Amino acid sequence: MGRMVALTLITFFGAIICCSWTKSIPNAPTPNIIIMLMDDMGWGDLGVFGQPSKETPNLDAMAAEGMLLPNFYTANPLCSPSRAALLTGRLPIRNGFYTTNAHARNAYTPQEIVGGISKDEILLPQLLKTKGYVSKIVGKWHLGHRPQYLPLKNGFDEWFGSPNCHFGPYNDQSKPNIPVYNNSEMLGRFYEDFKIDRNTGESNLTQIYLMEGLDFILRQTKAQQPFFLYWAVDATHAPVYASKRFLGKSQRGRYGDAVMELDYSIGQILKWLRTLGIDNNTFVFFTSDNGAAVMSGPNESGSNGPFLCGKETTFEGGMREPAIAWWPGHIKEGSVNFQLANVMDLFTTSLVLAGINPPDDRILDGLDLTPVLLNSSQPLKNRPIFYYRGNELMAVRLGQYKAHYWTWSNSWEEFKKGINFCPGEEVPNVTTHEQKEHTLQPLIFHLGRDPGEKFPLRSEYQDALSRISAVVQQHKDTLVPGIPQLNMCDIAVMYLKNTCYARCVLGKNNSFFNKLSFLMKNVIQG
Amino acid sequence: MGRMVALTLITFFGAIICCSWTKSIPNAPTPNIIIMLMDDMGWGDLGVFGQPSKETPNLDAMAAEGMLLPNFYTANPLCSPSRAALLTGRLPIRNGFYTTNAHARNAYTPQEIVGGISKDEILLPQLLKTKGYVSKIVGKWHLGHRPQYLPLKNGFDEWFGSPNCHFGPYNDQSKPNIPVYNNSEMLGRFYEDFKIDRNTGESNLTQIYLMEGLDFILRQTKAQQPFFLYWAVDATHAPVYASKRFLGKSQRGRYGDAVMELDYSIGQILKWLRTLGIDNNTFVFFTSDNGAAVMSGPNESGSNGPFLCGKETTFEGGMREPAIAWWPGHIKEGSVNFQLANVMDLFTTSLVLAGINPPDDRILDGLDLTPVLLNSSQPLKNRPIFYYRGNELMAVRLGQYKAHYWTWSNSWEEFKKGINFCPGEEVPNVTTHEQKEHTLQPLIFHLGRDPGEKFPLRSEYQDALSRISAVVQQHKDTLVPGIPQLNMCDIAVMYLKNTCYARCVLGKNNSFFNKLSFLMKNVIQG
Repeated sequence: MGRMVALTLITFFGAIICCSWTKSIPNAPTPNIIIMLMDDMGWGDLGVFGQPSKETPNLDAMAAEGMLLPNFYTANPLCSPSRAALLTGRLPIRNGFYTTNAHARNAYTPQEIVGGISKDEILLPQLLKTKGYVSKIVGKWHLGHRPQYLPLKNGFDEWFGSPNCHFGPYNDQSKPNIPVYNNSEMLGRFYEDFKIDRNTGESNLTQIYLMEGLDFILRQTKAQQPFFLYWAVDATHAPVYASKRFLGKSQRGRYGDAVMELDYSIGQILKWLRTLGIDNNTFVFFTSDNGAAVMSGPNESGSNGPFLCGKETTFEGGMREPAIAWWPGHIKEGSVNFQLANVMDLFTTSLVLAGINPPDDRILDGLDLTPVLLNSSQPLKNRPIFYYRGNELMAVRLGQYKAHYWTWSNSWEEFKKGINFCPGEEVPNVTTHEQKEHTLQPLIFHLGRDPGEKFPLRSEYQDALSRISAVVQQHKDTLVPGIPQLNMCDIAVMYLKNTCYARCVLGKNNSFFNKLSFLMKNVIQG
Repeated sequence: MGRMVALTLITFFGAIICCSWTKSIPNAPTPNIIIMLMDDMGWGDLGVFGQPSKETPNLDAMAAEGMLLPNFYTANPLCSPSRAALLTGRLPIRNGFYTTNAHARNAYTPQEIVGGISKDEILLPQLLKTKGYVSKIVGKWHLGHRPQYLPLKNGFDEWFGSPNCHFGPYNDQSKPNIPVYNNSEMLGRFYEDFKIDRNTGESNLTQIYLMEGLDFILRQTKAQQPFFLYWAVDATHAPVYASKRFLGKSQRGRYGDAVMELDYSIGQILKWLRTLGIDNNTFVFFTSDNGAAVMSGPNESGSNGPFLCGKETTFEGGMREPAIAWWPGHIKEGSVNFQLANVMDLFTTSLVLAGINPPDDRILDGLDLTPVLLNSSQPLKNRPIFYYRGNELMAVRLGQYKAHYWTWSNSWEEFKKGINFCPGEEVPNVTTHEQKEHTLQPLIFHLGRDPGEKFPLRSEYQDALSRISAVVQQHKDTLVPGIPQLNMCDIAVMYLKNTCYARCVLGKNNSFFNKLSFLMKNVIQG
């Protein structure tokens, strides 16, 4: 409530002062950069990508004003490695966001994992800082929760959000709820201090994240400071949530409510850029971290449209992402570009937009998309998409052809417990419950004719295979895997001194504000 | 080629004369009506409905200029009964377009079926004639091929097209190719006289159908005659075809080429209406006869987007259709309306637009959609959708809830031969290969949260069921099935005198162009 008041004030403040200063801002040589990263949102969740309920008017308008990229991919079908790839421009197999303790298992950073982003990696905000950019992450970090891994130790100047998923509520003792930070200060925890009602699905978090974003944009604009906002909201990750205003409003239930609130918020951000007069100087990119979590059932998960399976898998439903690029006056409005592209390109593209040379001391997987975005006619030819699942290269796309070297939905063991990564879908020899190797004779699909990966190719097979094989061979020959960072698990990590200490001391105190002031003094500054 | 020349001439002619006469045309009291009915095109084949290749710019523009109806249905998941329903405003179970010789089998009118549209039915063009409309069908008829069933015996003033599908090529003897008519005269046959190259997929048929449509529109406009054009093209029905200009142009293969050519042609028709200055006086509706024929594989079939299964089935993929209403100045541009609607509504709506009272001597299933189309805010509440398969009411939708009383994909016998009505999809207890009755405990899905019909409802079940049950009870209590027209099969029918006679006369003439000039002289002007 206090935050909503603050939001209103800021909006009012902005509305009054915007017109007096925008004209005096010299044209910044480099654009501000906003990356809006959704959590478990699927390709098919947007009206513009075919969601039957058509409840994303702001995103659809964003596409109409910018460029739609129907062939945009993540680097891994799970959150942590996807986010590590986005911020490093490198495949998880290179940046270490994978595990070697199980074949083809996607790893992430739940509370018991001790690892995080390697100190040898260079993150986007670190590089942007060299050109004077101020960077903020709003929302979920997911690159490690121990102190050295947190955003402010890795190039971000500001952070409002959580290191991990808002799973829970957990019990207070063996498993504490996930903390929420403001910069390096822990404000409290999900469920306790930042409410998420599991019964009703009500939570104000998206509104808080919206305010944090608007406030940051306003402050940097006033300071005439180029900025990078990484808006990593998580309302569409189970348990999905929305604030009261949106609950019950969607045709799609609670998940749809969450989408509507995110869509609304994105509309507010774009409107804010216009109000501040910086829309022509701000590059905005919208996408998601991985496919919809179809294993979570219809109330808690989204849609991957016509694509097979979802999150965790290397079928199209797991890794094809909704994607919109928006930069009025620079990106041609209403354009559609079929370039094969991925989240790692956002690293390289952002650097190019900022006039920074990408690091040349390491292999980068991200390409500069500016020729595609700004001319919308120059494809980056023959660029493959690699589909990794944990430590295994499962599949490769080149042009319209996708070859599967390994197939796997999920294990029989999980499946028999009722966990299904491909509910309602079963393509023989493709959605396999055992990890099935096809290296000697990869399954190939033509994704133009068969986006759902249902009909393995027969004709054209040899020609397609020989071209893909060359790409795979080159990739494997030159690949030097990074040191896996997510192999170690330690239950004691959940009681890391900073969070645990605060928790132990504060556990008996019921007042959020007392906790907050204590934290500010004793923990966050520690 | 001759036709292309004619097309060019007509276009040229129209361009010259349009401006001199359009202003002198008085505002017609009732609009012209164009129904564009695609064949086996799926909901997911349009960019605006989520096709990843986004190759339907003209249809997407039509939606942006008109109204999108994401909840539009056919009356039966197969061509003949769907078309009979459209033209009579009545369910096939009422108008007789079903069979009783097998339970839940969709019937149609292949050459060996002797039946057709009952003389007791009143067809849309018959009624439109009472207000001076001139009606033409271009393309596939499919309501019976014996003389008494053909279009000119059932209210149409003109016809260019075929009574049946362009299956084939057949041998000349036991099974002749399907004839093509101009009005009541047979011009020749598919493959022989109207080429379809099964190897390359090349055929000029869509261009011919386009020309026939443009020519009809031009003539009626010149004559200041209100018209009804039923443009029932079939390029997306297997064997799919496209003309040389479009072959190989799509990302989706031959099927996509066919879609591109249809999209182009639709763009040409809308442009023609503008050129002639009658766009504000012409109501245009685009839809398809049933879901994509996913059993035909990726080269010959389209996409049903996020929906389950396809043609022949009563899952959403079989009966949810792409739908766009367009009428500049009357239908709000860029609107989306979620009204549950169906092809039978086009009958009633067309009558209302033409100022004709719908017949009151029979039960009509079509509703007047004009309140929805013209105000876009008034839903026709509690209107159910009935999903029939042959003689059986398989499922009913009311609001977001759909109850399945029977489920069936296709028989084990067919399935074991490799024919699959739901390739890559398998929802236990739903996509059943036996005809499974659920009457005592219908399966219910929430189509907002679960458009793919994968998660049978648990909570809300009783409430949803009781509401649907009341509707079903009322429907069944009052239903008087029509006499089934498609029970009788007779191989001798294939040699019906008129088609055979024409064949004998024309069979010896090898020159298509000679025929064409003959037609131009004797038929088209006749």
